[in-house]
Amino acid sequence: MAVRVSVNGYGTIGKRVADAVARQPDMTLVGVAKTRPSFEAAVAIERGYPLYVAGGGDLGAFRAAGLRVAGTLEEMIRASDVVVDCTPEKTGQANSAAYTAAGIRPIFQGGESATVAEASFNAASNFTAARGKKSLRVVSCNTTGIARAAALLREKYGVAEWEATIVRRAADPSESDRGPINGILPNFKLPSHHGPDVKTIFPDLRISTLAVVVPTTLMHIHVNHVRLERPPASVGDVVEAFRSTPRFHLFRRWEQVAGTPQVMEYARDRGGRRPDMMENVLWEEGISLQGNELRFFQAIHQESIVVPENVDAIRAMFELAPDGATSMARTDQHLATAR
Amino acid sequence: MAVRVSVNGYGTIGKRVADAVARQPDMTLVGVAKTRPSFEAAVAIERGYPLYVAGGGDLGAFRAAGLRVAGTLEEMIRASDVVVDCTPEKTGQANSAAYTAAGIRPIFQGGESATVAEASFNAASNFTAARGKKSLRVVSCNTTGIARAAALLREKYGVAEWEATIVRRAADPSESDRGPINGILPNFKLPSHHGPDVKTIFPDLRISTLAVVVPTTLMHIHVNHVRLERPPASVGDVVEAFRSTPRFHLFRRWEQVAGTPQVMEYARDRGGRRPDMMENVLWEEGISLQGNELRFFQAIHQESIVVPENVDAIRAMFELAPDGATSMARTDQHLATAR
Amino acid sequence: MAVRVSVNGYGTIGKRVADAVARQPDMTLVGVAKTRPSFEAAVAIERGYPLYVAGGGDLGAFRAAGLRVAGTLEEMIRASDVVVDCTPEKTGQANSAAYTAAGIRPIFQGGESATVAEASFNAASNFTAARGKKSLRVVSCNTTGIARAAALLREKYGVAEWEATIVRRAADPSESDRGPINGILPNFKLPSHHGPDVKTIFPDLRISTLAVVVPTTLMHIHVNHVRLERPPASVGDVVEAFRSTPRFHLFRRWEQVAGTPQVMEYARDRGGRRPDMMENVLWEEGISLQGNELRFFQAIHQESIVVPENVDAIRAMFELAPDGATSMARTDQHLATAR
Amino acid sequence: MAVRVSVNGYGTIGKRVADAVARQPDMTLVGVAKTRPSFEAAVAIERGYPLYVAGGGDLGAFRAAGLRVAGTLEEMIRASDVVVDCTPEKTGQANSAAYTAAGIRPIFQGGESATVAEASFNAASNFTAARGKKSLRVVSCNTTGIARAAALLREKYGVAEWEATIVRRAADPSESDRGPINGILPNFKLPSHHGPDVKTIFPDLRISTLAVVVPTTLMHIHVNHVRLERPPASVGDVVEAFRSTPRFHLFRRWEQVAGTPQVMEYARDRGGRRPDMMENVLWEEGISLQGNELRFFQAIHQESIVVPENVDAIRAMFELAPDGATSMARTDQHLATAR
Repeated sequence: MAVRVSVNGYGTIGKRVADAVARQPDMTLVGVAKTRPSFEAAVAIERGYPLYVAGGGDLGAFRAAGLRVAGTLEEMIRASDVVVDCTPEKTGQANSAAYTAAGIRPIFQGGESATVAEASFNAASNFTAARGKKSLRVVSCNTTGIARAAALLREKYGVAEWEATIVRRAADPSESDRGPINGILPNFKLPSHHGPDVKTIFPDLRISTLAVVVPTTLMHIHVNHVRLERPPASVGDVVEAFRSTPRFHLFRRWEQVAGTPQVMEYARDRGGRRPDMMENVLWEEGISLQGNELRFFQAIHQESIVVPENVDAIRAMFELAPDGATSMARTDQHLATAR
Repeated sequence: MAVRVSVNGYGTIGKRVADAVARQPDMTLVGVAKTRPSFEAAVAIERGYPLYVAGGGDLGAFRAAGLRVAGTLEEMIRASDVVVDCTPEKTGQANSAAYTAAGIRPIFQGGESATVAEASFNAASNFTAARGKKSLRVVSCNTTGIARAAALLREKYGVAEWEATIVRRAADPSESDRGPINGILPNFKLPSHHGPDVKTIFPDLRISTLAVVVPTTLMHIHVNHVRLERPPASVGDVVEAFRSTPRFHLFRRWEQVAGTPQVMEYARDRGGRRPDMMENVLWEEGISLQGNELRFFQAIHQESIVVPENVDAIRAMFELAPDGATSMARTDQHLATAR
Repeated sequence: MAVRVSVNGYGTIGKRVADAVARQPDMTLVGVAKTRPSFEAAVAIERGYPLYVAGGGDLGAFRAAGLRVAGTLEEMIRASDVVVDCTPEKTGQANSAAYTAAGIRPIFQGGESATVAEASFNAASNFTAARGKKSLRVVSCNTTGIARAAALLREKYGVAEWEATIVRRAADPSESDRGPINGILPNFKLPSHHGPDVKTIFPDLRISTLAVVVPTTLMHIHVNHVRLERPPASVGDVVEAFRSTPRFHLFRRWEQVAGTPQVMEYARDRGGRRPDMMENVLWEEGISLQGNELRFFQAIHQESIVVPENVDAIRAMFELAPDGATSMARTDQHLATAR
Repeated sequence: MAVRVSVNGYGTIGKRVADAVARQPDMTLVGVAKTRPSFEAAVAIERGYPLYVAGGGDLGAFRAAGLRVAGTLEEMIRASDVVVDCTPEKTGQANSAAYTAAGIRPIFQGGESATVAEASFNAASNFTAARGKKSLRVVSCNTTGIARAAALLREKYGVAEWEATIVRRAADPSESDRGPINGILPNFKLPSHHGPDVKTIFPDLRISTLAVVVPTTLMHIHVNHVRLERPPASVGDVVEAFRSTPRFHLFRRWEQVAGTPQVMEYARDRGGRRPDMMENVLWEEGISLQGNELRFFQAIHQESIVVPENVDAIRAMFELAPDGATSMARTDQHLATAR
């Protein structure tokens, strides 16, 4: 029988998780919860997702807008086995007690602190350890991107030390009221929180990160310098490792992808439910090896990279797949079919 | 028998026209022509579009990239009834003689001067007059947007005079090497060329336009002031007119669409082959009426608004539909189905 | 004896007004008031401006920063004849009663509603009518720009009707936490408030405005269409009128000023206390005339255009100059000398 | 007797070098050479700099603009002891032979390859070794910024290894026709050229750099990770070292400088000939120390940081100062006086 999944919070991540869950044959989307009417609520209803009103929400406003409401957040939760909490940062923690009281298993996002759940999760890194957990936290977009690469590099070559600069997008494309215009803002937490967050997945990884915010909405870029324990045979060996690993997309030189604008253009060209890049994006010419010193750029689509991870987190929690590779393959196949 | 259509030039417009033609049951996509390999060429092949190499193109580069080439531009043209020329501005004129020599009917884009073809075209405005023409020019994105609104307003209320400011996007999303950062550039052609271009569709329309370029890639915005000949009963009457006319999309206040970032977010939410807005975009709260003075904003998605118009131009040319309304309905239905 | 002037609020406008007042021989800068320490407070002290702590301000924070404080806002006001209120929008109204109680004459900025003061003010337009007033409001940057042009055009040619599109900068250069990235936001007040605000200066002017916000920090651009009552002899006549009027700066074609980035580059090249453009900026090739239809672009430096107007407002209030032309000449001379 | 200095190329760097040279009592500005009239040429004449027409330039265009020309580039060079070549990248190399033939000593900029001159130069790093050279190359803005910091850190603590990410501005503020909007472009040269360029100053420094381009015009940001040879006593020790070294500007926490927008706002507030930051900019809270691992951000104003270095290069060449510290103090004093 399919696991019954509801999504609380229908913003950038929530709406994508709803789309992804709706496509998995071993899951049923019970509904999505939102506080206010908007074009996004209207599209949810058009797509056939039952729409529930979240706690502080205004039922009258939905009615005035002519949007059919299926019930309250509480009703949605009662009808579900698991809730994916996609509410704004730090709100998940506040919702936690209500989920526990309702006897539902929650999955939180990376904006919450690690203590919100039994374990932090990344499909390629610790699926097996997460099996059967009563609550999980899918790590943030940047942490997910690093964890995926770390899972690969640790296994193939060992990682002695990792230094990364996170060049962060200032806002998501539709957030038209925030972010710097024409400036760069350093993150004055040195090292930044990304390194410690990766250690919620790989506690023994030696990693340190610094971050700046720049005026773009498309993607983050990670500038990575990794000292490997075992030198690869050649840079081509590393390139092939990235190319053949699920959830990595490697552009070739002739594809003429100069940066994040062309990456997202590719996402639009490729098609699918949305123009998303759920993979870590690398460039063949953006990988360099000197002895055991590996340097590479990777671009991270902050809006979508954690989406398949949420699906896998549900499978881990309910032991719907024996291991991460199996779950990831299933998730990705159904997301691609939907394309 | 389906009309055989080829697309010369596979950039922003060309790739969208190819997608749209491939979805029309009364048309067959013969192929697309491109000069250089790129991620876009790879996607074309993945989608099953035969790829031809345009004149100055380098066959060796395609081979080195592992991209299967179906033949030359000349071969593509010989197998077609009509070619949609989507080459860079002013290149269409240069291609014109070759099309004529090959006995194929060309459709040009708005970057060419009006004399390139027998007539300039907009589906809602002059479909009937374009029937059976040997060559057509689909007017540019801004002109298309104005022509659609003019067709509606002229019929319902009459237009005494129209003044518009065109706030232009500086570059398309994937053009990462051009455009101002943090500045506004006036167009020192006063009035701008948009007014005269609209007159290739409506010769007797009294219209004058001015333009500025701003650092955005998403959409243009038109700021319109129209003196109507016959005052509408109310602003609600005008709102309903826009709402009920094909190829207009009207946002309601509760949808919380503050500007172009949310419009394109809606396009991504709505889904479809690409996150495009082929409609003129208006806002309920962005329309005002004082007597017979109508003011309204409309947003124009420069990448896609002319795409359905190219499909209709083919139908006009080959008399596949009795009138514009029939053709537009057919085009839009097949584009929507593909969503 | 010099008029004693204090400045309450030391942000974008306040710091420039302080600089300008300090340069006028018929005025003494008593001091400036600020609520929190910052690099701007430090520069004020370096420049010798006595620094006072405004009401809600934290004296301890200034001390911890090592910034010498001269006293409280109340003390500053008691020592002054006039206070220029440059506090954030709508705060001036709240301060009004305290100014009245202290028996000091206030000058407010355009962010306040017109009722805050006895009259709204623009030096070129209504200096004489403002003489001796007990309180004044200097109209906002966009209104100032339009009023200056209206004063000139009304006198020389008469204005039958004026339509303008205001293309607004989203944020000031140092406001790194707001404003859209990569989008255009229409102002859904149609017509926008700018037209009515101009009428606080010219009650009988027929003017209507619409506005959009764009992602730039440098300047606003006005796109103007003016129907004149008396046709000018030629466009050259209008060009010369703008060129020979104080507080207009007209770029010639050979100067290669493509837009606002080059205007502000010119301001940096020209030098002075700050890289400001206190003049309305026009382009020779950005003015067009067809019969009595005048079209022109003007760029408005939102940070500085109202600065000389505040100086003139003080002169009007205290009858330090017989007319606007005399005051403006004096203000501008001392600002230029300081360059 | 003052050294006679001419400046060939009057763009971003050239105009600033001219301003700086004009302020040094031991130098005479012979003139500046430019190829085309522009607002910048007009300002040069207003400031009293003799204007010469460079080789390919059009004398007629200057005359038509009413700009007085003092002569040709060749005449300017004949009247000079040294020419500072500020022509576009790679043009300096082409000019080299003409300078040699004229018997004048050239100073080139960092856009030329290192072989263009006898030595690469940075005042704090190798002034003494540069004394008496017949030609010098002032290293680029990013290299200058790193060299200054390296000179300091090497002397005080020793540098075992340096890794930096260069987050580059896409265009200068007045370059309104280039640069990405809303994207990040990785530099696919890994490591980037900046590391090797620093080694033209410090051949034995172990440094490696990576770079990305972002849509801003204000400043570059360097994200630095340095392994020191001798651990500092505390982070405060490092902070004080930066604070007390010439050509470093360190912001304190209470100054509320969130990033490059506020840095350049400070430059405008501080005043001077232009709103420039010729110092390396650091933040107290942007420096972290863990053992001997130093991490810090520095912002580099690409338009002005090399300007004082060009002045010092002249002094080194003509042995006008015994050492770098003396020359730098003199240069900086006269630049500040001019403020």
